[in-house]
Amino acid sequence: MQTITDRFHAQRLDAQDELASFRQRFVIADPEMIYLDGNSLGRLPQATPTALDELVETAWGERLIRGWNEGWLEAPVRVGGKITRLLGAQPDEVIMADSTSVNLFKLLVAALEARPDRHKIVTDDLNFPSDLYIMQGAARLLGREIELVVVPSPDGIYGPVAGLAEAIDGETAVLSLSHTVFKSGYTYDMAALTAVAHEAGALTLWDLSHSAGAVLLDLNGAQADLAVGCTYKYLNGGPGAPAFLYVRRDLQETLHNPISGWMGQRNAFDFGLTYEPAPGLHRFLTGTPSIVAITAVSAGVDLLLEAGMDRLRAKSIAQTDYLIGLWQAWLEPLGFRLNSPRESAWRGSHVSLGHDDGWRIAQALIQEAHVLPDFRRPDNIRLGIAPLYTSYTEIHDALARLRQVVTDRLYDRYPADTEGIVT
Amino acid sequence: MQTITDRFHAQRLDAQDELASFRQRFVIADPEMIYLDGNSLGRLPQATPTALDELVETAWGERLIRGWNEGWLEAPVRVGGKITRLLGAQPDEVIMADSTSVNLFKLLVAALEARPDRHKIVTDDLNFPSDLYIMQGAARLLGREIELVVVPSPDGIYGPVAGLAEAIDGETAVLSLSHTVFKSGYTYDMAALTAVAHEAGALTLWDLSHSAGAVLLDLNGAQADLAVGCTYKYLNGGPGAPAFLYVRRDLQETLHNPISGWMGQRNAFDFGLTYEPAPGLHRFLTGTPSIVAITAVSAGVDLLLEAGMDRLRAKSIAQTDYLIGLWQAWLEPLGFRLNSPRESAWRGSHVSLGHDDGWRIAQALIQEAHVLPDFRRPDNIRLGIAPLYTSYTEIHDALARLRQVVTDRLYDRYPADTEGIVT
Repeated sequence: MQTITDRFHAQRLDAQDELASFRQRFVIADPEMIYLDGNSLGRLPQATPTALDELVETAWGERLIRGWNEGWLEAPVRVGGKITRLLGAQPDEVIMADSTSVNLFKLLVAALEARPDRHKIVTDDLNFPSDLYIMQGAARLLGREIELVVVPSPDGIYGPVAGLAEAIDGETAVLSLSHTVFKSGYTYDMAALTAVAHEAGALTLWDLSHSAGAVLLDLNGAQADLAVGCTYKYLNGGPGAPAFLYVRRDLQETLHNPISGWMGQRNAFDFGLTYEPAPGLHRFLTGTPSIVAITAVSAGVDLLLEAGMDRLRAKSIAQTDYLIGLWQAWLEPLGFRLNSPRESAWRGSHVSLGHDDGWRIAQALIQEAHVLPDFRRPDNIRLGIAPLYTSYTEIHDALARLRQVVTDRLYDRYPADTEGIVT
Repeated sequence: MQTITDRFHAQRLDAQDELASFRQRFVIADPEMIYLDGNSLGRLPQATPTALDELVETAWGERLIRGWNEGWLEAPVRVGGKITRLLGAQPDEVIMADSTSVNLFKLLVAALEARPDRHKIVTDDLNFPSDLYIMQGAARLLGREIELVVVPSPDGIYGPVAGLAEAIDGETAVLSLSHTVFKSGYTYDMAALTAVAHEAGALTLWDLSHSAGAVLLDLNGAQADLAVGCTYKYLNGGPGAPAFLYVRRDLQETLHNPISGWMGQRNAFDFGLTYEPAPGLHRFLTGTPSIVAITAVSAGVDLLLEAGMDRLRAKSIAQTDYLIGLWQAWLEPLGFRLNSPRESAWRGSHVSLGHDDGWRIAQALIQEAHVLPDFRRPDNIRLGIAPLYTSYTEIHDALARLRQVVTDRLYDRYPADTEGIVT
C-alpha cells in the first residue's frame, strides 16, 4: 500500500506492459491531457483516417455505385463477424445495424412476439435509460398488455439488483439488462441469469454497450439469446458509430424483425412487393447501412482483435485494481466513495468514485487539472480505463490531480450540478 | 429534330450552362466513364474528404468526448435545417435520423396512432418495395387490425395510379407514397393528393428519396403532413448516408415516436427513468447519430444550396427533355420505349427506357461502352440526371453509345437477366 502511490511504480508497470505499444496506434493530440472517457467515446485509431480516405476517395469516388457489389452489401456481416470474436459468438451471429436503441427495439419486439402468451418484460433501474425508454415505447405499441417490471436497486447505483431472479416468472417473456451497468460498472453474471430466465421459459436480451471490448464475453457459453451493443466506446468506432446485434443461430429463423426493410428482404434486388425475410441474421437489417460509418468501426475493431481480449481484460483488471488502490490510499480519506465493485469479477472497465461535491470536482478536474472523466448523477466521477491506450502513469497522475483538486479546493469556484456530459 | 443529335449542339448547351462549373466540385476519377446513376448514389463532392478529415482528425481525434457539446448534439437539427431549404419547409421541420426505412416506420406508426379510429393505409404498387415492407411489418405489429390498401397500376410501371384518390376514404388513416417513383420517375401532385387525403381526414406521408434535390418541393405549400427521404442520391451524402424526416410544425407535439430512445428524450442527460418526449422534432430521434456520416451529408447538401433548386430543376428539365429528344431520334426506332412521363411536370430527374433486351443491353452498356446506368425489372434502363455534374455532352454520348450497343448487337454475348443492381 506504500509503493503503489509512487510514480515510479506506475512507470515500472508501463514498462512491463506488453500492450503498451498499442497506445502509439492512436492519435494522442495532447499528451498532457489524461483521457479517462474512452468508455464514452474511444480515441481515434491512427488507421481510421486512412481507412476512411480509401473508402471515400477510392471506393465511393471512383467505383461509385459499383461499390455495392464490391463489398459494401456484405459490410454489415463482415464487420459483425469480426465483432463476434470479442463476444464469444459464431461468425454468423452478429451483424452491424442502426443504433443500439433501434436494435433493442427490434429484438425486444421480436422476443415479445416469440412469447405471445407472456406479458412481462423484466429489467432493473440500473439499466441505461434509453433501454427503458425503448421498452416503454414498445410496451405501449403492441396490441396486448405488456407489463414492464423495473426491479429497483435499494442502494441506488451499485449492483447487482437483488430481486431480479425472483422477478422472473412464468409470465415473463424477456429479461433485458445492461450486462455492465453504465453508472457503477457492475457486471452481471450472464450465464447465471440466463439460466434463471430459461428455467422460467423466458428469453434474454443483453445490452453489451459497456461490456464489448471491456470484459470477457461468452454469449454462446452463457446460452444468451439476444444482444445489442454500441461500437463507439471500447471499440473506438467514432462518435455515434453504428451498433451491432446478436441473435443466437438457432433463433435466427424463428424471429421476426418488426422494422422489416429492404436490406432484410430475401433477394432484395428482385424488388418484390411482399416482404419475405432473408435467411439468417440478414433479416434484422432494415435500411441501407452507412458504409462510411461501418468502415470506421472496422478499423477500430481490428486493434482489439490484434491485442486479443484475454490480454486486454487482464490489463483492464490490473489497471482498475491499481486505480482502486490509489483511491484507497489517497481519496477515501478525502470523502470519496467507491461506487463500483471492489471485486474485479463483477466490474467492467470503468470505476465510479462518488463524492458529495462530485460535479464540482469533476468540472475542476477537467478545467484545472487537464483530466477528462465524465460525470453521472448523483455523485459519480466516472473513470474509464481503455487498456489499448490508457497507461498506468496516466492513472497515477489522474488520481494525484484528483487528490490535489480536493486538497487545494480547486473546485470551490465551480457551481453546483446543472447538467451532465454525454455518455 | 435534326440538330439535337449533333454533338456540337450538346457542347453548345454545356457552354451556355451557368451551372456547368459545379462539375469541377466533384471527384471525376475517370472522365471517360459516363455516370448516369447519381439517382442511386451521388458522386463524391471535392469538399467531402476535407470535411471528414476535419471532423475525424480534429473534432474526434483532439476534442474527443467534448465534441458532443461543441456541435455534434445539434448536428441532426443543423443539417436537417439545411435540407428544409430543398424541401419548402421551415428550419425546424426536418431532422437527420436513422435510415429512410426506420424513419418511415416511426412516422407511419405515429400516423396510425394519431387516427386510432381508422384502419387503412393507402399506397400503390409503384412505391419503393422497402416502404411496402415497412408498412406490412407495422400493420402486423399493431394491436388493431390494419388494412394495407396497395392500389395497383394497370399499366405496370408508369404512373399515376388512377384509383388512388378513390381509395382514400373515411377509414383511411394515412396515404403514403413515393413522391417520385423509383422505376419510371413519375412525380405525383403532392398538393392535390394531400388535399384529397385531408378532405377524408387522413394524413399524408411522402417518401422523397427520388425527389429531394431533383424536383421543386413545397411541403408547406402542399400542406404535407409527414415525409422521409434519403441523402445518398441527389444530395450526394455517400453510400448509405443517414436519412431525414419531416413533420409539419403543428403536428410535432401531437405525435409519438414509437422507437422512443434517449436522443428523443427531454433532458436526456438527466438520465431519468421515464421517457418524456423532447419538444418539437427532437422527439423523433432515437439512438446516438453517426456524426461521421452526417458530416458527409452536410458537405453534399451545401453544393445544392449554392446552386439553388430553381436552377437545378430548370437544368434537370432541360437535360431530361434533351435525353428524351435523343431517344425519339435514335432509340425509339430500335425498339426502346419511354417508360417515364414525357411531360416534364410529372417527371423527376431520371428517365427509364424500356427494351425487351433491357438487361443485356444495360450490361453491354456498362462493360463495352463505359456508361453506368442502372436497371430495374422488368425492362428499365434507368438513366439518372444529376444537374450538378451531368453534362449535355455526356447525355449525348451515352445515348449514342446506347444506340451503338444495339445497332452493333454488342449485347449478344450477355446472358439474360439474373440479378439487379442496387438502387
